[in-house]
Amino acid sequence: MCDIQDSTMMLVRINMRTALAALCLAVLLIIVFWSRCGEFSHRPIASVLSNGLLERGAGTGGVGGQEIECVINGEYSVACHRDRDQVYLPFSFIHKYFEVYGKITSTDGVDKFEWSHSYSKVYHPKKKYDPRGTFATFENYNVEVRERVKCISGIEGVPVSTQWEPRGFYYPTQIAQFGLAHYSKNVTEPEPRVRIIDDGEKVLENWIVSKDATISRVYDEEMKTKVLKFSTSDHVSSQVWLKVNISQDFVLSLDVWFKPNSSITVVLQNKDKKETVYLHYVTSNQLIYAQEDHIYHGIGTEVKWRRITRDLIIDMQKGWALLDRPKRKSPRNKFRICSVMLRGRGAVCGVRVSSSEHMAQFYAAADWLASGQRARGGWPVLARRHVAPSVPDLKPGWLSAMSQGHAISVLSRAYHRSGRARYLLAAQRALLPLDVPSAHGGVKAMWMDKYVWYEEYPTTPPLFVLNGFIYTLLGLYDLHVIEGENSISLAKKMFDDGMTSLKTLLPLFDTGSGSFYDLRHFTLGVSPNLARWDYHATHVNQLYLLAGLDPDPVLIDTAKRWEGYMQGKRAAHN
Amino acid sequence: MCDIQDSTMMLVRINMRTALAALCLAVLLIIVFWSRCGEFSHRPIASVLSNGLLERGAGTGGVGGQEIECVINGEYSVACHRDRDQVYLPFSFIHKYFEVYGKITSTDGVDKFEWSHSYSKVYHPKKKYDPRGTFATFENYNVEVRERVKCISGIEGVPVSTQWEPRGFYYPTQIAQFGLAHYSKNVTEPEPRVRIIDDGEKVLENWIVSKDATISRVYDEEMKTKVLKFSTSDHVSSQVWLKVNISQDFVLSLDVWFKPNSSITVVLQNKDKKETVYLHYVTSNQLIYAQEDHIYHGIGTEVKWRRITRDLIIDMQKGWALLDRPKRKSPRNKFRICSVMLRGRGAVCGVRVSSSEHMAQFYAAADWLASGQRARGGWPVLARRHVAPSVPDLKPGWLSAMSQGHAISVLSRAYHRSGRARYLLAAQRALLPLDVPSAHGGVKAMWMDKYVWYEEYPTTPPLFVLNGFIYTLLGLYDLHVIEGENSISLAKKMFDDGMTSLKTLLPLFDTGSGSFYDLRHFTLGVSPNLARWDYHATHVNQLYLLAGLDPDPVLIDTAKRWEGYMQGKRAAHN
Repeated sequence: MCDIQDSTMMLVRINMRTALAALCLAVLLIIVFWSRCGEFSHRPIASVLSNGLLERGAGTGGVGGQEIECVINGEYSVACHRDRDQVYLPFSFIHKYFEVYGKITSTDGVDKFEWSHSYSKVYHPKKKYDPRGTFATFENYNVEVRERVKCISGIEGVPVSTQWEPRGFYYPTQIAQFGLAHYSKNVTEPEPRVRIIDDGEKVLENWIVSKDATISRVYDEEMKTKVLKFSTSDHVSSQVWLKVNISQDFVLSLDVWFKPNSSITVVLQNKDKKETVYLHYVTSNQLIYAQEDHIYHGIGTEVKWRRITRDLIIDMQKGWALLDRPKRKSPRNKFRICSVMLRGRGAVCGVRVSSSEHMAQFYAAADWLASGQRARGGWPVLARRHVAPSVPDLKPGWLSAMSQGHAISVLSRAYHRSGRARYLLAAQRALLPLDVPSAHGGVKAMWMDKYVWYEEYPTTPPLFVLNGFIYTLLGLYDLHVIEGENSISLAKKMFDDGMTSLKTLLPLFDTGSGSFYDLRHFTLGVSPNLARWDYHATHVNQLYLLAGLDPDPVLIDTAKRWEGYMQGKRAAHN
Repeated sequence: MCDIQDSTMMLVRINMRTALAALCLAVLLIIVFWSRCGEFSHRPIASVLSNGLLERGAGTGGVGGQEIECVINGEYSVACHRDRDQVYLPFSFIHKYFEVYGKITSTDGVDKFEWSHSYSKVYHPKKKYDPRGTFATFENYNVEVRERVKCISGIEGVPVSTQWEPRGFYYPTQIAQFGLAHYSKNVTEPEPRVRIIDDGEKVLENWIVSKDATISRVYDEEMKTKVLKFSTSDHVSSQVWLKVNISQDFVLSLDVWFKPNSSITVVLQNKDKKETVYLHYVTSNQLIYAQEDHIYHGIGTEVKWRRITRDLIIDMQKGWALLDRPKRKSPRNKFRICSVMLRGRGAVCGVRVSSSEHMAQFYAAADWLASGQRARGGWPVLARRHVAPSVPDLKPGWLSAMSQGHAISVLSRAYHRSGRARYLLAAQRALLPLDVPSAHGGVKAMWMDKYVWYEEYPTTPPLFVLNGFIYTLLGLYDLHVIEGENSISLAKKMFDDGMTSLKTLLPLFDTGSGSFYDLRHFTLGVSPNLARWDYHATHVNQLYLLAGLDPDPVLIDTAKRWEGYMQGKRAAHN
């Protein structure tokens, strides 16, 4: 209450007409009225006026202020500027102290300093989420460019992760995200440009056949089309090749039937630097290796027809990463494909280069998941995972509710698009681990024996990671809808139980100025694990999506409040 | 919440009409915004602030550089200084945006700017807490000076609160705090100075007896000493009085035996201003009233011996507050007692003035509690309490676990000092409401049916207020120790159960940069209620105290981490 008195006295001192003072008092009283409703504290009002005095100095002040030492919490000092009663603090200090961000930008020669409280972005869904459409905001994801992706495997066409295992391993969550990102891009992006190089029938290229090499065009029973048969000698210069000049688009795909020790090589050239890179796709089981300008991807040794789809720029980048070269820029417009070479013995057909092959990449993920699933419905993660101090590591072979959920989202979409039952069955089998407690090899935790939680990291004690749990819920929702909205399915029950848990426990993730990544502070009794801004933004995106599926105000209210935190807003203090 | 002053600053500079318009806009924005979502603080600032600061932009110059406009989260602008690549932001903005505090101080002519993250202080206990000694940090409390204390009642000698009921009511929590503060001061402060004015035996004053008045010194059977009998006529000038000149000490105490329409008046004078204040203690049941320089406290109408103890300076201040005078300074050294007058018919003895009478004030609280307790062990709060929007108000007659706990702490100490069983029995009876659910008139809540919580505000749904719960635990500990450390008592069981709840749920009060006042965000699904810094400091003080009683690391670790938050430290983000 004393704050009101002080403030009114201040106002009088800010030499203003009495009429204005009275009006200001009115404003104050209104605010105080609200503060008494507990909506926010009256304390800051007093502070407004106390720094009102500071403001006056700056307002009337001119150039020629001095330096002043700022003592921070009596612990250390920062050199600041002073202009009468106003003190100016260097942003370099503010940035470190509060972890806010800022940069000087220039428009029409006028410089501005742009302060941003967070570095992340929220996507507001344009329409209700539909499992047949994009997955969350994944059309903006580009999984393969991530540093923790070692390469795209030549055999399965899916990413290989180095996140917790430098030698590389198949991380089901990452593979599913790769699939969901390409599925979503396929929905949002325009039709790709496709340029047929050689289809064996209508479009035929004049392949150059070197010494000791032969080619022939023959009809293939399996492919039901004419294919290009080729054979070269072991001599290094013996090859069948094609001179091309393709820029702009770099996704190569073709059907191959290779005998052992065969390969297809694509030569890329940097237009300016005339630098040349050789991408070799060889009949080997080795994932990737590189030597100088030669980058090798193993496409396996099976002698049968299979389709290969490669993003040549990605393959080049992963090779460079392997060579530990200073990170090179490789903008697509800087390169061109200048030739394609065949060596060994085999056949090819349907050779084409496209701006994208999203569905092929999506199905690569779906097929890996469908065929890699274990009998109990899980996709074991074969890397050891250290989650938190004082918590036993997850031993190779652990399951993740997030992998399960993402996989279900991929498989549901694959079933919806293809109608192939194997995808649906795999998605349904993937539910099983969600009902098995973490301690018994599953991913289920219980909050106080009451509320189920699907654990991204099934540790004991549990962590209650938020974003992974919500992604699992999306998987459950996807399967339920794809099975038929009105079906009473296990997926639907698991989704409903999970939503009850989410709506009950969501407030516990609210810090009043951001969100917690998990609830380890409660389950381990340690310092809280705050979510950095990109995870916080993920939380907000997820909540906006769910708010479209469930009218409970806790979802939309929390989403809005949490989005506000990203602009520096805070919950009220008493 | 910090926009008002900026808008006014702007107004100083522009014409009246624009000013009025802008202010109305401010009021409007504030109303519209807060009626929508009260928990946020910045949006309305944005609109007003931007006007305000953009107007001022031109006025401000730079220190050794130019001015640069800082765009804050793309919402509003602040005028900053730029010196090459370093940008300097005005503290007035930082203060509003982050609610940190700062002031320019000067030592030996050198100015410094002292930045402090919080405005509160933590007290590190010097030794293990002992229920026979000080209560928590209450030796630093001064309950009676609080604005929400209307006065100290003349009959019971305890504070009367206006916190939720302007007419004033007896708030058991406040009365107990008054007792505990005086008990603690009695432990920590040196022996008081006592100046005997008239004890009827050895020290005798020459009372001046005016026309129609009489006095006599007679032995009194009940008081077992000679007392001063007096009688005056109804004539206004008829009185028995004493000229004195006492400065420095202002706590008057004496035994009185008054017939109806009798009074004792103490005249205080301000040494400089020669201002005179008349403190009348009259045989009436009216709490307090004041007229010009005359302040009246009713001391009741019972015709029997009783001891009155009054802090004259406090009585004067409360009278002034009643007169709504501009807050007057009344430093004790500025005043002196210049006379004491008796009117009506009665007797007095043991008249003295001391620097303090802490134990008398402590027992006033203890006796009020012992005699005011209801059969079921509670001290009903007779004011209606609005706790939070969307929660039904607490109807007059509600109990508070904090009142119960504080009362137990007072009564345990009173029993320890006096050995009188009534205090111990009252303390034990006070346990009963702690085992009755809030919905049935008690103060007990359960967290997920598992963990008991003693509710400071027994609402349905519960709030889980932290500081009130811990104070209740201290009361339980006090009684247990006073009953005998090894006794297996109900208090001990309730304390142990409560400590289990505290150690389990404490992490949920951790925001990663401060603490929550309660868990309403979980129980009501609303925006969290952050603890302002003085409550946060209370949490830290309480945890350091409990860490001395229980070795569980969660107590000391949390205390240290939370103390760090007060210097701007934060929990780590992932």
